[in-house]
Amino acid sequence: MTEPTYQGKPLSQLFPEERAGWKGYIEWEDCPERKAIGREILKTKKFTPSPEFQLAPIPDTNPVLIGWRYKEYHEALGLKHIVDHSWEIVQKEKPDMIHLLDFPYNGETRRDKLMEGKITDNKYHFIRNHGGVPEIDEDAFELEFGGLVNKPCNLTMKDLKDPNKFPQMELTVTLQCSGTRRIEQIKEYPGEGDELIQAPWGEGAIGTAVYRGVSLKKVLKIACGGLKPEAQHLEFIGADTYFKKLNIFNYAVSVPWRKVRNAEEVILAWEMNGKPLPKIHGYPLRVVVTGYIGARSAKWVYKINALAEPSMGPVQSQEYLYYTPQIGKHNVKYSNGFSIQNMPVSSAIIFPLDKKVIVHAGKIAMQGWSYSGGGNWVERVEVSPDGGHTWWAVPQEQLTQKHYHAWRLWQVEVPVEAEGWIEVCVRTWDSSNNTEPTFVRSAWNWGLHVTSSAHRIKLYSVNTTRPETAKRLAWLEEHGERIEDLTVPIKEGLEPLDEYLATVRKFPREPES
Amino acid sequence: MTEPTYQGKPLSQLFPEERAGWKGYIEWEDCPERKAIGREILKTKKFTPSPEFQLAPIPDTNPVLIGWRYKEYHEALGLKHIVDHSWEIVQKEKPDMIHLLDFPYNGETRRDKLMEGKITDNKYHFIRNHGGVPEIDEDAFELEFGGLVNKPCNLTMKDLKDPNKFPQMELTVTLQCSGTRRIEQIKEYPGEGDELIQAPWGEGAIGTAVYRGVSLKKVLKIACGGLKPEAQHLEFIGADTYFKKLNIFNYAVSVPWRKVRNAEEVILAWEMNGKPLPKIHGYPLRVVVTGYIGARSAKWVYKINALAEPSMGPVQSQEYLYYTPQIGKHNVKYSNGFSIQNMPVSSAIIFPLDKKVIVHAGKIAMQGWSYSGGGNWVERVEVSPDGGHTWWAVPQEQLTQKHYHAWRLWQVEVPVEAEGWIEVCVRTWDSSNNTEPTFVRSAWNWGLHVTSSAHRIKLYSVNTTRPETAKRLAWLEEHGERIEDLTVPIKEGLEPLDEYLATVRKFPREPES
Repeated sequence: MTEPTYQGKPLSQLFPEERAGWKGYIEWEDCPERKAIGREILKTKKFTPSPEFQLAPIPDTNPVLIGWRYKEYHEALGLKHIVDHSWEIVQKEKPDMIHLLDFPYNGETRRDKLMEGKITDNKYHFIRNHGGVPEIDEDAFELEFGGLVNKPCNLTMKDLKDPNKFPQMELTVTLQCSGTRRIEQIKEYPGEGDELIQAPWGEGAIGTAVYRGVSLKKVLKIACGGLKPEAQHLEFIGADTYFKKLNIFNYAVSVPWRKVRNAEEVILAWEMNGKPLPKIHGYPLRVVVTGYIGARSAKWVYKINALAEPSMGPVQSQEYLYYTPQIGKHNVKYSNGFSIQNMPVSSAIIFPLDKKVIVHAGKIAMQGWSYSGGGNWVERVEVSPDGGHTWWAVPQEQLTQKHYHAWRLWQVEVPVEAEGWIEVCVRTWDSSNNTEPTFVRSAWNWGLHVTSSAHRIKLYSVNTTRPETAKRLAWLEEHGERIEDLTVPIKEGLEPLDEYLATVRKFPREPES
Repeated sequence: MTEPTYQGKPLSQLFPEERAGWKGYIEWEDCPERKAIGREILKTKKFTPSPEFQLAPIPDTNPVLIGWRYKEYHEALGLKHIVDHSWEIVQKEKPDMIHLLDFPYNGETRRDKLMEGKITDNKYHFIRNHGGVPEIDEDAFELEFGGLVNKPCNLTMKDLKDPNKFPQMELTVTLQCSGTRRIEQIKEYPGEGDELIQAPWGEGAIGTAVYRGVSLKKVLKIACGGLKPEAQHLEFIGADTYFKKLNIFNYAVSVPWRKVRNAEEVILAWEMNGKPLPKIHGYPLRVVVTGYIGARSAKWVYKINALAEPSMGPVQSQEYLYYTPQIGKHNVKYSNGFSIQNMPVSSAIIFPLDKKVIVHAGKIAMQGWSYSGGGNWVERVEVSPDGGHTWWAVPQEQLTQKHYHAWRLWQVEVPVEAEGWIEVCVRTWDSSNNTEPTFVRSAWNWGLHVTSSAHRIKLYSVNTTRPETAKRLAWLEEHGERIEDLTVPIKEGLEPLDEYLATVRKFPREPES
């Protein structure tokens, strides 16, 4: 088999993996000519459109969605091995997830794993990748500092991990995709269909881990001699390859210097819950930005630039933008939404599941998570069994411990007298007294980001303290039928004829003259 | 092939078509022993459960749902020919419908046919059958009067059609299935799953026709010498076979005498829009009850009984019951809901369709139907472009003519300045000042009947009077892209770099110190 070429040159020469020990990494940002050739090649090809899952049902397969288009981009540049290798890593490191998108890999934590404890096991922590997974030897790895730093420099992992050079720290951090609970927005109103699929996340694009590493502020100070006065933003460049409208990039985002100078809020991390970072989580080194959307916590970060303005990387300047409800395909621009950085207060009911039949004796047990970004923490969680009319606080004893930068899990039993379909919702109050909008529509936006409205589910309440209900449940059990099979007809008649006639004769439908 | 038998007797002898010229008709109500044998046979068989379409997506096939269970009931009794013949009649008389259920046949009128005029063409008028379609020769047909009439008698079609015996009348009548718009209730909360499938109707289970026939009141008076004093209800028995929990019936319903004694409200009809009744609509004779749910307008009516109490037929006593929202499988009885007779005021938006992109210059055109039963007529129709906050009346000129017992079609242009997703709804006020509940939840009920809340759709509004929108539409057209493909990403960048930078530098995201 001959290697594919472009104008006589093999693709592997045009888009080389240049650094020994850096598998799956192509440098794009330093190579404008390489970018241009890549774009020329992509422009000659046809690619499969993204699947339509907003105006059509979401498949109930696993993986749920297949990233044909992004795979084809890689293949067109001779980079199919990145696609294949990434999926191998998924199989090894994340075998038991809801695989929402197979490539770039987006995996959602299953409900039971989400509620296992305040720390999410590495194996189950959600993943939202924007490209393939590079595999970089720790010994070959170098982190480069550039831009408006006083002293550009390169650091090895050995340098970074040397406690005599940089003081180490551990931090318990919740990371959340800004698309968490996006499915609620999709169900009400379709929105942007990006070429990098906006995954239809449920409540599991969030997770918490203890990260070990060094404060970026201190590294900048110690290794780079600080920043030039005009530096206002720090840009993080990751080794993964990113595509946008037939342009090719390395992943790049930025956060303001003002965020970084809080020594405990932006760290360079190599350990997650006491273990080396999994490859799919950024091994050997990633950024962890507390309180911000997950997208800013760049993985496989190999270059940090101090800039006067935010990164022009498309993930920063053209995506994760928050629009007013009147903005959409007919008028959307990169400059008429604002960039999402801090995450607002939000929460989710994890158990029970939506549309379940709940047999109870006057109280329904619920559990879930609550979180607030931006340096706020969760102060109070309230649950409503009547669609938002009355609210019941979760007792403090039933919330997990507070951290400055992490969620709290909660459980509660809510009094429910009513039967039939009820709407149950949760809202959280954070340490700045922020709470959540009541309805999805209140905060719907074209990018389908930040679904922070009170999470709302429907339950079919069956209250066994009511005599008629207790009688019917016993009868169903006796006859081998289940109330949980709600829409399945009861096999026999609903009441004896004499009972029926006694009632309808006592209260006939037609009035007296 | 040997004919199937039960205890040595061929099924065709046990369940015979006894009357010459009465194809597809088996007498059950007069034959308790026959009913008992039928039940014994059914009890020995297993039947396919009804399809689950409330907790799973509704198929997008046509027919939408297949009535396996009801077909198997017929087959078990050697009556498969009724099933086959009914479908032949559908093909002939109703080829171009949304076939919601193939057997018993339920067909919904397509939107364009619904809006063609105040009279619905026979070919397109909706059908909600409860059994197979009998085929009865007009010359062989007889209508029997019994029960608490002063003079039991039989009438031929020739008798009934003789203007010297009974004065004839014509009436413009809207008939509506009490399940119209049921799909809205299903989408919010699943409910009863009957063995006779509760079809997931949209807005097309309604239609209007001019019926010709005789007033039932007058026939009772002239032919039967009136009713005995204790008679309070008139029961209508149809020639179709009906099943309920392995019991077998002829279709039977009733209406109060008080309704019948209004000479213009209950008629025996043989003509529909100037033509003989189509077979599927009840040829040679049906009842038409104005203002009531369609189920009371029995087809193929061959027996009318005067009764002291409502019919004990399951369609009357065990179905079409209206329950409170706290009643469901856990406590539902035949006696804790009330029987649905008159239909309340209701309406539907037929155009535009839900979730459509609407490109307009400040006004959105809409059309639909409005109806009220119970002797009320439509006085006013109002449309809201903002989810029910402001309401705009449809000018009287844009409503079709009033009839005592028929709908009004309407069209209107509503001012819409807003862009993006809007919720548009309609409500109607009738001649008694009744109007519609605002939300589906306000009137949800276990039987999923009478979806009379303000009909609500979502539209994506694109207002070309806005300069940014006009510019984007022109650009899309120039580049061969369509705003209607809402979720398909725009191929090129959203704005030139210099424009982007000018805006984000003028209004930077980060504040001043």
